[in-house]
Amino acid sequence: MSQTRRSGCPINLTLEQIGDRWSLIVIRDVMFENRRSYGALLEQNKEGIASNILASRLKHLTASGLLTRSSDPNHQQKGIYSLTEAAIQLVPLLAYMAAWGLRHTNPEASLRSELLEKGGPSLWSALMNELRYLHLGAPRPARSVLGEFRADYEKAIAN
Amino acid sequence: MSQTRRSGCPINLTLEQIGDRWSLIVIRDVMFENRRSYGALLEQNKEGIASNILASRLKHLTASGLLTRSSDPNHQQKGIYSLTEAAIQLVPLLAYMAAWGLRHTNPEASLRSELLEKGGPSLWSALMNELRYLHLGAPRPARSVLGEFRADYEKAIAN
Repeated sequence: MSQTRRSGCPINLTLEQIGDRWSLIVIRDVMFENRRSYGALLEQNKEGIASNILASRLKHLTASGLLTRSSDPNHQQKGIYSLTEAAIQLVPLLAYMAAWGLRHTNPEASLRSELLEKGGPSLWSALMNELRYLHLGAPRPARSVLGEFRADYEKAIAN
Repeated sequence: MSQTRRSGCPINLTLEQIGDRWSLIVIRDVMFENRRSYGALLEQNKEGIASNILASRLKHLTASGLLTRSSDPNHQQKGIYSLTEAAIQLVPLLAYMAAWGLRHTNPEASLRSELLEKGGPSLWSALMNELRYLHLGAPRPARSVLGEFRADYEKAIAN
């Protein structure tokens, strides 16, 4: 991603390793929507990501250690993408982006973003544990933050 | 910045409003190095930002409400860039990027990033007050976080 010289500044290195806006959109969909295949990431993406952009970002994220790719046991051709521990540790960064967006842009009403902000660091760390279960094979934690997001969403559309 | 359809997701809107990696590099230099002119931002940038990239990012950041441009009272031709309140509220996001970079990349030893992480939210909010003084004309706060960064740096190079 660096057209010019590198720098060892940790902010710059983080930006290089993550990549661009589309890379973070892909991480968002894997993280919060548990979309794990190329097809799900392509078809359900709200921003209408183009197929060549998605393919190149999945390649970049895998090469830079934020996603791993394994074969679906039922369909050898099909890849299943998982977050790495480094990517799971981006939860607070994405939560902070959501909080900033709620305050400084004109977002759609977003229950999830409000819950992420209201919940603060203790909810983020519960979510990180749930992601370690879903992506890294860690034990299933008692609390499901993604379940809470879904329940809240269903309650809201029922009203 | 959006090649495809918009979405009202606050994370997406934050990414669109900030722009790309270079926009955040420019904000970093204005924020932590107090570089306020095009010339200082160009010549002192560690990543060797190209002049056309810098000019386009300054235009984008001004249009999207993250920077304001005023004329230098001593040189009418020369613009002075200031952070807006919305940009100042990106301090925790950049601090978190620095913390993630320290942990997950191979950064240069970075005193500032370590201080940003160790200081946590109370240091970030002191820095935000100092930036409100430097950029928005708010009263000068008693604590200078940028001064602490400089003192630490000078102590380190003296050793």
